[in-house]
Amino acid sequence: MAIELSNLMERSLSMLSSDHKSVVSMNLFVALLCACIVIGHLLEENRWMNESITALIIGLCTGIVILLTTNGTSSHVLMFSEDLFFIYLLPPIIFNAGFQVKKKQFFRNFMTIMLFGAVGTLISFVIISAGAVHFFKQMNIGTLKIGDYLAIGAIFAATDSVCTLQVLNQDETPLLYSLVFGEGVVNDATSVVLFNAIQSFDLSHINLSIALKFVGSFFYLFIASTMLGVIAGLLSAFIIKKLYMGRHSTDREVALMILMAYLSYMLAELFYLSGILTVFFCGIVMSHYTWHNVTESSRVTTKHAFATLSFVAEIFIFLYVGMDALDIEKWRVVRDSPGKSVGVSAILLGLVLLGRAAFVLPLSFLSNLTKKSSHEKIGLKQQLTIWWAGLMRGAVSMALAYKQVRC
Amino acid sequence: MAIELSNLMERSLSMLSSDHKSVVSMNLFVALLCACIVIGHLLEENRWMNESITALIIGLCTGIVILLTTNGTSSHVLMFSEDLFFIYLLPPIIFNAGFQVKKKQFFRNFMTIMLFGAVGTLISFVIISAGAVHFFKQMNIGTLKIGDYLAIGAIFAATDSVCTLQVLNQDETPLLYSLVFGEGVVNDATSVVLFNAIQSFDLSHINLSIALKFVGSFFYLFIASTMLGVIAGLLSAFIIKKLYMGRHSTDREVALMILMAYLSYMLAELFYLSGILTVFFCGIVMSHYTWHNVTESSRVTTKHAFATLSFVAEIFIFLYVGMDALDIEKWRVVRDSPGKSVGVSAILLGLVLLGRAAFVLPLSFLSNLTKKSSHEKIGLKQQLTIWWAGLMRGAVSMALAYKQVRC
Repeated sequence: MAIELSNLMERSLSMLSSDHKSVVSMNLFVALLCACIVIGHLLEENRWMNESITALIIGLCTGIVILLTTNGTSSHVLMFSEDLFFIYLLPPIIFNAGFQVKKKQFFRNFMTIMLFGAVGTLISFVIISAGAVHFFKQMNIGTLKIGDYLAIGAIFAATDSVCTLQVLNQDETPLLYSLVFGEGVVNDATSVVLFNAIQSFDLSHINLSIALKFVGSFFYLFIASTMLGVIAGLLSAFIIKKLYMGRHSTDREVALMILMAYLSYMLAELFYLSGILTVFFCGIVMSHYTWHNVTESSRVTTKHAFATLSFVAEIFIFLYVGMDALDIEKWRVVRDSPGKSVGVSAILLGLVLLGRAAFVLPLSFLSNLTKKSSHEKIGLKQQLTIWWAGLMRGAVSMALAYKQVRC
Repeated sequence: MAIELSNLMERSLSMLSSDHKSVVSMNLFVALLCACIVIGHLLEENRWMNESITALIIGLCTGIVILLTTNGTSSHVLMFSEDLFFIYLLPPIIFNAGFQVKKKQFFRNFMTIMLFGAVGTLISFVIISAGAVHFFKQMNIGTLKIGDYLAIGAIFAATDSVCTLQVLNQDETPLLYSLVFGEGVVNDATSVVLFNAIQSFDLSHINLSIALKFVGSFFYLFIASTMLGVIAGLLSAFIIKKLYMGRHSTDREVALMILMAYLSYMLAELFYLSGILTVFFCGIVMSHYTWHNVTESSRVTTKHAFATLSFVAEIFIFLYVGMDALDIEKWRVVRDSPGKSVGVSAILLGLVLLGRAAFVLPLSFLSNLTKKSSHEKIGLKQQLTIWWAGLMRGAVSMALAYKQVRC
């Protein structure tokens, strides 16, 4: 009887502590988010700092503290999953970017953006893949199949739309912002098409019909994703206007806008389309139509609520990346063969730099040919900024890499 | 080689489909939420319907459809966990209730609310426990220990604060609303204290020192939870006022308010306090102090964003409850011994009715003795409404029951 009871107590205690551990880490994470906001605000005047860098540094420091207190077994408090990122954090960021983007500037440069996002990504992909084949074969790092080289190209051709938002300011440099961010959004669609194509097509003998299929599937994905976003946006505008939702309550309008936008993203994922592209266009349509059909207080609420959601999601990501930088497991492989790791990283970095330069400069030249007024043309300084601002490789690359490892 | 490849393909396909299944259910759930809002809006004029009932009915219908399409194996699309409820859905609902509550009305009736929430819950607990001991012993339903009977009392003495919000309207019946909802919030603290006391104290021989300990731990829990909520609210007001957050951006103010409120709830859970009580008082303090220190657009945003969050969380819960009503597994035990199940349910229902009547009527009488003006007194009709409105047993009871089963 006594043993039974103590057994029972033990079980309930262990249950409690496992629940409690997740409560502890939630507390720590929310407290760190608060700290990032306050410190980021205090450092506002400093031109080298912003919330994201603060979050990165705080994450790094927390990682060190956790590493020391757990005797070097782990540096994070939360298990970060792809799902968490793609289902909860990414949609509000991209939706808000579409919602707040300067539409006039964006659509005026639409052709250039498409050129950069579609053709540019392809050029980048070809150069990185070819470079990887050329250099890695001499380095003796195990045998890789042709599909693996192409996957490397696709992974490193995917830029990070979230980081881009941090580098450029929409109000100060509207042209550059719309070009680089727009490219990032279209790039996502291209990367997904590329990656799926690599996994499903037989790539050992590429011929015309496969190339045509490839182009066709890009256009299908691009048009279908865009249409889905536009339809979701228009539908929300129609429902809110027709049913005169604001008559009874503001909350219903706001809730419906958020849910419809989220639904468009999830539907895109359901049909294997590009959710980023869909929710981006949904944001554009909602800010252009739905937003003008809601009550005044809904307008203020949606504008700030979406921005806040996106803001918190961004800080969350950077905080996590800071903690993740110290992950012992990930550094172990580097310790085993430091020379090779540095070599591979350097080659990939060089290829990414080269691959981006190889399309920004010629495509800017092409785009400039179509523009008449000189202030619409992309100058050399701006071309260099575009080249530099889009260099970051972020969450989409990471997710594609995980996918490749799992297969 | 060919086998390896097909193996690989199979694995990646099964991976994909398991991921895809969760995407499908997310889509269905978000679409149903949208449908609830639109249909709830269309039925606004109907006095028998509101969003919650719509959500319940839609959930029920969806459950039937899923039950038929899966050949009767399952009726939900999402696995509902205690965590989902207590970590994500409950905090925004209770926080918003505190944020929007009419403070004057609430604090004027503070003593009555405390009387109902603390003493009333105790009376209810004693009656239900004693009744369970008396009736269940004659019914031959297996041997239960004294601790089990007390746990039954504690579980069924916990009312549901969320359901209460649906029954009464703050604008139409402010006195009743503040009494019943306030009681629900204090009731949560009492239930948690009761339940923890049952699990940790030796209850076979109750004496004065245990009773004193019990009263002491109630006051500790009540005061500590309230203080935590008040401190979190004041701290947010202080930070936002001192640092003049609104100068740079509205988003930071809104983000900080949400995060601080959430942090107060999680801290309460961390220290085994009553999170509901904490976040409720945090909401009251934030609406009284913080809200007046933020910019005009933050005021509009927070007011509507919190209401929207709470609104969506409530619909979510009712939608799920509708689906859950058809859970085959839960009905199986009823089919095995229908007579006994109906008997136990009827006895418990009777005890809950009796236990509530046994404190609402005498405590209202006591409370009326202290009031001078006749319109502040609680009339018999109002007493009956209080008795009726607080009868619902909801998520807190369910969570406590799960806890008891797991131990």
